[in-house]
Amino acid sequence: MTRLFNDPAAFADEALEGFTAAHRRRVRPVTGGVVRAGATPAGQVAVVIGGGSGHYPAFSGLVGRGLAHGAAVGNVFASPSAQQIRSVARAAHGGAGVLLMYGNYAGDVLHFGQAAERLAADGIDARTFAVTDDISSAAPGESAKRRGIAGDLPVFKAAAAAAEQGLPLEEVLAVAERANARTRSFGIAFSGCTLPGADHPLFTVPEARMAVGLGIHGEPGIGEEPLPTADEAARLLVGTLLKELPEDVGRPGGRRAAVILNGLGSVKYEELFVVYRKVAALLDEAGVEIVDPEVGELVTSFDMAGVSLTLTWLDDRLEELWRAPADTPAYRKGALGEPEAPASGPVRAADEAPEAGIPAASEASRHAAGAVLAALDAVAVTVDAHVDELGRIDAVAGDGDHGIGMQRGSTAARRAAADAHELGAGAGTVLAHAADAWADKAGGTSGALWGTILRAVGNALGDQEAPTAARVAEGVTEASAAVRRLGGAEVGDKTMVDVLVPFADTLAAAVSEGLRLTTAWDRAAGAAEAAAAATAGLLPRKGRARPHAEKSLGTPDAGAHSLALITRAVHGVLLNHH
Amino acid sequence: MTRLFNDPAAFADEALEGFTAAHRRRVRPVTGGVVRAGATPAGQVAVVIGGGSGHYPAFSGLVGRGLAHGAAVGNVFASPSAQQIRSVARAAHGGAGVLLMYGNYAGDVLHFGQAAERLAADGIDARTFAVTDDISSAAPGESAKRRGIAGDLPVFKAAAAAAEQGLPLEEVLAVAERANARTRSFGIAFSGCTLPGADHPLFTVPEARMAVGLGIHGEPGIGEEPLPTADEAARLLVGTLLKELPEDVGRPGGRRAAVILNGLGSVKYEELFVVYRKVAALLDEAGVEIVDPEVGELVTSFDMAGVSLTLTWLDDRLEELWRAPADTPAYRKGALGEPEAPASGPVRAADEAPEAGIPAASEASRHAAGAVLAALDAVAVTVDAHVDELGRIDAVAGDGDHGIGMQRGSTAARRAAADAHELGAGAGTVLAHAADAWADKAGGTSGALWGTILRAVGNALGDQEAPTAARVAEGVTEASAAVRRLGGAEVGDKTMVDVLVPFADTLAAAVSEGLRLTTAWDRAAGAAEAAAAATAGLLPRKGRARPHAEKSLGTPDAGAHSLALITRAVHGVLLNHH
Repeated sequence: MTRLFNDPAAFADEALEGFTAAHRRRVRPVTGGVVRAGATPAGQVAVVIGGGSGHYPAFSGLVGRGLAHGAAVGNVFASPSAQQIRSVARAAHGGAGVLLMYGNYAGDVLHFGQAAERLAADGIDARTFAVTDDISSAAPGESAKRRGIAGDLPVFKAAAAAAEQGLPLEEVLAVAERANARTRSFGIAFSGCTLPGADHPLFTVPEARMAVGLGIHGEPGIGEEPLPTADEAARLLVGTLLKELPEDVGRPGGRRAAVILNGLGSVKYEELFVVYRKVAALLDEAGVEIVDPEVGELVTSFDMAGVSLTLTWLDDRLEELWRAPADTPAYRKGALGEPEAPASGPVRAADEAPEAGIPAASEASRHAAGAVLAALDAVAVTVDAHVDELGRIDAVAGDGDHGIGMQRGSTAARRAAADAHELGAGAGTVLAHAADAWADKAGGTSGALWGTILRAVGNALGDQEAPTAARVAEGVTEASAAVRRLGGAEVGDKTMVDVLVPFADTLAAAVSEGLRLTTAWDRAAGAAEAAAAATAGLLPRKGRARPHAEKSLGTPDAGAHSLALITRAVHGVLLNHH
Repeated sequence: MTRLFNDPAAFADEALEGFTAAHRRRVRPVTGGVVRAGATPAGQVAVVIGGGSGHYPAFSGLVGRGLAHGAAVGNVFASPSAQQIRSVARAAHGGAGVLLMYGNYAGDVLHFGQAAERLAADGIDARTFAVTDDISSAAPGESAKRRGIAGDLPVFKAAAAAAEQGLPLEEVLAVAERANARTRSFGIAFSGCTLPGADHPLFTVPEARMAVGLGIHGEPGIGEEPLPTADEAARLLVGTLLKELPEDVGRPGGRRAAVILNGLGSVKYEELFVVYRKVAALLDEAGVEIVDPEVGELVTSFDMAGVSLTLTWLDDRLEELWRAPADTPAYRKGALGEPEAPASGPVRAADEAPEAGIPAASEASRHAAGAVLAALDAVAVTVDAHVDELGRIDAVAGDGDHGIGMQRGSTAARRAAADAHELGAGAGTVLAHAADAWADKAGGTSGALWGTILRAVGNALGDQEAPTAARVAEGVTEASAAVRRLGGAEVGDKTMVDVLVPFADTLAAAVSEGLRLTTAWDRAAGAAEAAAAATAGLLPRKGRARPHAEKSLGTPDAGAHSLALITRAVHGVLLNHH
């Protein structure tokens, strides 16, 4: 929903004021909207775009060299008035006429039409052009009735680039017509936006459903379906657009398209990229060459959740205009000249970290590696069984990803250990491979610390001697020291260190008393469990109160808890192997 | 929430894949992340940034000339591993060492630190630098413990621009230290994000509240307050940052700052601009010169709702680095050379549409203008009384703004009419002024049509003769024709035309029968009411079924309904004035 505003009635005006303050080097305010900071060159057709507020960067964000000369800015979701449009057009006029461009909505058609008449009365040659790219808003036979959505951008840009080349008004208009005739968009939506000051959304889509073809102001769509995966969404978008090709689009393999994957507001960049990955693959399969794709927010509807795909089928002329440079507050192309040519070829082997080889190991150590592998199996199984619990505990004072992080790490460690064991590695090398895999796949703090722990134990065991209880205790002691060194935490900070230190100390003491490893480990695991439980009962060490996190008073630290669980799991394996 | 994904575990990898597909002219994928498409120039220090996924454009979107040489990309909200970082750094290395830069989070500190050690073992000189701009995450005395948020950008950029200038690693690091020491951020949040595949948000903020200083992964904030207005939010952000100035910031009036107003995901552009309007004004009042402000989404947290303000207090050197050009997928500066110098001065009077003067009017017409004004008063009062109802009706088949649009239009029309009446205008001119004001302020289709109606009636009445019933009927008939011409709708299309045509026809017939205006108008208003009711009972003419809009079967068209209400309200005025 829209939360930040003052008087809702003043929202559009205040937004425009802030926009011009932020972008005063590129645009300047005039009555009714904005024009480029620099004057329109004499003799150049001025392209003046416009529409309601609430769709940024449409429309004011698209004013600048290579794109619009001015934008008339209406109230929230309302057309600018004829008077506003006329005022912006007069300020943008460079003596060679004005092309007024907008999405095809009844209010815009009326007001821009009236503005053109008034401009004619002022002695300014003005034409109008409504973009009609949304294929879900009317059947192919009635394409003139279609609404304009993200296809606004390529159509505006084609006309504006033609104007920059010095073409006369009639020819700029003809370019707009050709670009529009070859531009198609199709969209899906998951939720509507709440306008400034409104107490409920403009429209809603049921949970876990999507509306197909829903308009950016909530205009009727053509159906409703279950929420798709990203790949399914890509298939729907691409498949629908490929069903309605312009007549002269060329043969498969000779087809080129400008591609815009547009987010409506709260479908965010990474989601768009996940969808685009499949869009690009599907277009490639269909023999379509993608030219200068755009993936981002180009026409929004406040925080509406939805996405649309736009294809402009290019010929040589339209490709030239699409590739032409542009420099506006929200859309820039050709910055600093052309980007460098890509460095030669794909990733070179030299870029990659070299694979470590498998050092030779004694028979005894290879045998011990089997027990290590079993222990790592048990760790992964235990983490799997507790992944949700660990996530819940972590969410109290952290970002809730401890469970998944531990799962990724322990799974990767087990796999790497199995591979190394298969290749004949000793206990030390198996643990070293497991350590690297855990740190690499888990990421986060816990990934680094668990990598450190496994590596320290592996270093102590080595690949030659049969591991003894003393060696194991030595490795755990070294792990305890390394984790404190690396993580900077001490006992009492309510982290895994609170558990690791008593575990290591108890293990070392029990082993030096002459206890067998299994018995010593059991005692140490008991100390670990007690220490983990003791990390509950105080606020997490990050210190500052978190709103509504009072329940943290009874929750142990997630990293402490998972360490205790793991020490107990490993004890089970030792029982079987001794 | 995050809705578009395939396997949640593959989300970060798939997003990176789509990102590199969309931006292959600027970046190329390597194991662990991306590097610039072009090789790092020999002898240039490579700046390698990184962090978890879910924060786009941080971090991959900031790779390119003038900014980072590479980005290591971790899993969702998780640090990249040391191995990933090492791999990206090796690919980006240009022979002059690597500066590893990241926000100050425990996992990142660990992994980047380990990567630096491994790079050193590879023979590559590597340093690390953690950005610590979030002033709510630790007290000033413990600023090294602070988290990094949107201040990442100016600190990364300063270091990278210094690297582009050919400075050696030690000096690039010193620039990073200086930029970080002079960079402060402060943020507020209204809701958390839901990670891909999660079934509930990572954290929540109670309805109509804001969390102050909440971290971008939900780390503890410093308090909770009621939801502010945009101006209050600006005051909190600016006021808090001005309380913690760096020591050497200079005197008021000599202070300069790079300003970043960052949206976290679903606080959208227009909202940011409304807030920025006040931020700019407050900084101006405080004697701070704003240098190249950025208002947009630069560090996000999926669709988290929140906003942060970052100030980097510039000296000459830092200003030079902040202004230096950059060309990355998500951040570009200095495109096409410098923007043109702004055209001379502010808006010139010639840009503005000229104000119409008040033509001379007869005493009779000026008297009639009083009745016209009373009628416009009645219209505005009636619209006010029905604004919610009209919105609700419109929301069934449209965007729900008919009520507010009519309210804006009728209020503006009444005010303009009163002004013209005050200046001695006749009935025709009073209606003409009202017509322009209605169209100008209401926007949308209904604004244009109501402007047309009032103008047509005003034309028929003129400023000289006392209006007669015949003149009024003539004006209404002309209005009916003009609306059909302009709007392209005919009777039966379920729009206001369904009401306007029988109203005009009935009025004309009754007047030609010799009835007095009041009686004739009463009969016509009755016809209008019947016609408006008849627009219910069928789906709206837009034709296509709208999900969950079955109730439209019983709802009249909003424009038809409001027209009928208005004709009845005007009848009441006629009763009083005849």
